[in-house]
Amino acid sequence: MIRVAILGSTGSIGRSTLEVMGRHPDRFQLVALAANRSLEAFTDQVRRHRPRAAVLAADVLSAGGGPLGSLPEADWGWGREALLEITQRPDVDVVVNALVGAAGLEPTLRTLEAGKRLALANKESLVAGGELVVAAEKRGGGELIPVDSEHSAILQCLEGSPLESVARLILTASGGPFRGWSRDRLREARPSQALNHPTWSMGAKITVDSATLANKALEVIEAHFLYGIDYDALGVVVHPQSIVHSFVEFVDGSVLAQLGFPTMELPLLYALSYPERVEDPRLRTWDPVKASPLVFEEVDRETFTLFGLGERAGREGGTSPAVFNAANEVAVEAFLRERVSFPEMDEVVAGALDLLGGRRVESLEQVLAVDREARGAAEERVQFLERRGTRKGS
Amino acid sequence: MIRVAILGSTGSIGRSTLEVMGRHPDRFQLVALAANRSLEAFTDQVRRHRPRAAVLAADVLSAGGGPLGSLPEADWGWGREALLEITQRPDVDVVVNALVGAAGLEPTLRTLEAGKRLALANKESLVAGGELVVAAEKRGGGELIPVDSEHSAILQCLEGSPLESVARLILTASGGPFRGWSRDRLREARPSQALNHPTWSMGAKITVDSATLANKALEVIEAHFLYGIDYDALGVVVHPQSIVHSFVEFVDGSVLAQLGFPTMELPLLYALSYPERVEDPRLRTWDPVKASPLVFEEVDRETFTLFGLGERAGREGGTSPAVFNAANEVAVEAFLRERVSFPEMDEVVAGALDLLGGRRVESLEQVLAVDREARGAAEERVQFLERRGTRKGS
Repeated sequence: MIRVAILGSTGSIGRSTLEVMGRHPDRFQLVALAANRSLEAFTDQVRRHRPRAAVLAADVLSAGGGPLGSLPEADWGWGREALLEITQRPDVDVVVNALVGAAGLEPTLRTLEAGKRLALANKESLVAGGELVVAAEKRGGGELIPVDSEHSAILQCLEGSPLESVARLILTASGGPFRGWSRDRLREARPSQALNHPTWSMGAKITVDSATLANKALEVIEAHFLYGIDYDALGVVVHPQSIVHSFVEFVDGSVLAQLGFPTMELPLLYALSYPERVEDPRLRTWDPVKASPLVFEEVDRETFTLFGLGERAGREGGTSPAVFNAANEVAVEAFLRERVSFPEMDEVVAGALDLLGGRRVESLEQVLAVDREARGAAEERVQFLERRGTRKGS
Repeated sequence: MIRVAILGSTGSIGRSTLEVMGRHPDRFQLVALAANRSLEAFTDQVRRHRPRAAVLAADVLSAGGGPLGSLPEADWGWGREALLEITQRPDVDVVVNALVGAAGLEPTLRTLEAGKRLALANKESLVAGGELVVAAEKRGGGELIPVDSEHSAILQCLEGSPLESVARLILTASGGPFRGWSRDRLREARPSQALNHPTWSMGAKITVDSATLANKALEVIEAHFLYGIDYDALGVVVHPQSIVHSFVEFVDGSVLAQLGFPTMELPLLYALSYPERVEDPRLRTWDPVKASPLVFEEVDRETFTLFGLGERAGREGGTSPAVFNAANEVAVEAFLRERVSFPEMDEVVAGALDLLGGRRVESLEQVLAVDREARGAAEERVQFLERRGTRKGS
């Protein structure tokens, strides 16, 4: 029986985890749930799934206070300390970290330091704190299993192979809704169009990241830290169907790929049961004829320049990936509120990178401070662009 | 240093083995060569590659006698006994069995009984003698590594996974030059058209097998014995590009595939170096964009009926696969000599299967006898079809 804690249980990954665990009650036991948002949805989850511990993280409680209403029976806690306590519980084997944002980094470090398995869906952990995470893993002997479909694909292809036998990792990118658009046309791209993702149904932020290909740059950075692979050996190819989730090319020229119709449930199940595979007829939907044809294209780097910026941040290392990530979040939010245009997101991110990138990473506190500073710098840039836009329009 | 013997060194697989070994003199040492045919090419090989032992198998010497000409220095031998002795040499780690036909079965059994690694390219070993091979492997502790690109692909996808986690193996078939043809049109198919294979450059026999899809039925039977997988869990899909060499579907719905531009050198290198991978820049040609699009289609069982016959032979078991294989060889030869039409190959094989299939397999001698009987029965059927054709034509 594998005993599981889910941090960020009300989001899409958290809900998929509960769904897939619910189909295998003989294999998995839910021990703890934690959420940052959606108080009502969270108490519903606690009522339905009956975890031993339930933690409301800061955002919910700081949103003004007031009555919490009727809470179902559980060991309740709130705030950062209670969240971190979950990662240290002796009755938890696997922590699923599906928190959003930089708040996910500290639970990641604590889980790995405690020597537990971390099923990681929080991108910021590796992007902003990659060096810290690698150090925590070594220190505590924890085991980092990615939940992202691309990184899970790589792990599955690597299974049983030493890293020395790897020549190249090639991540696939759907290319997003603006695949084939010109840079000029992108000036007119509207948030509603960016949110219309062709293959994956995800939250607004990550859907826009998929349209800019910033998500793929973030995943390249994650792959670098997850597998200790040099950036020169990390490639990306556009694959609109999202059926092939990644390729691993070995030194002898052989290539393995992991495939399947897009669902987060498979990488979640794999992360929980790894290295075993759990029989799940619901996930057995493979039909190569239905998946045909599988198309691959080069990334259009001229048009999707945020991708190149993200790669640059990765190669620079130090604080640059954290700055890229934080500034990109502000840029996406500004685009969604129509404060900046689609191509202007670049300027927001590039400005912050120039200002705050390339410093050495020394501590969790520093990373969190850089995250805040980058948001501030990006917000200033957004305001500058708004003023420029208004002047232009007037 | 891995010490290698090659049986059938003058054929396409044998030559590719020498080619790939020649690129890695620090990893592989050639100890022995044996060939059934092409005396001149063989002595050239011995002169160039300087093996310790060189064996001329029966076919060459029985072809009339006469002077052998000047032989380069080596420990020479001839005939079956000398061939089998190679498999028992203490200075041989891996035997590459690239012999053609039923003559390959005995060296396969002896290699496995001697506890050595067998890099197997001889289809008849598993098709005609599958049960004997599995027993020899258990008895002697030898290790059977397939050299076929499809079976090598499966082995690579399985690496590190227990067989219980496998739900289905799906072999890819190029579909051959007659993909998309109707059964009616196939009556007019000429040998020259059948020999025009779209992706692989191979010998005449196997190229025709690829046009009838008989080769894929043979590979399904091989996969059954190699991996102990039930026929219900063995699928085939047509993939004209021959880039994806096979799929493995796991019980959790995940699918792994092995890909690469078609070359036998990769599975050969893998079979020699397994479980390690040897760096070989010459084989690193992967480019997903150049490979795009990858197309998959159902097998047209109505048109390519030899495929269904082969599957039936596999499911019947016992002597049926041996009969299918032997009768198919006679049928292909008759088609190449324009003695029977493309669809008439079915009749030749079906007749032999009805007559000799479905008996229990008890010994090597019995399998070899069944092989001969099936050839006789098939040849009779060819003569019958010739007479019928002549009558019709007159």
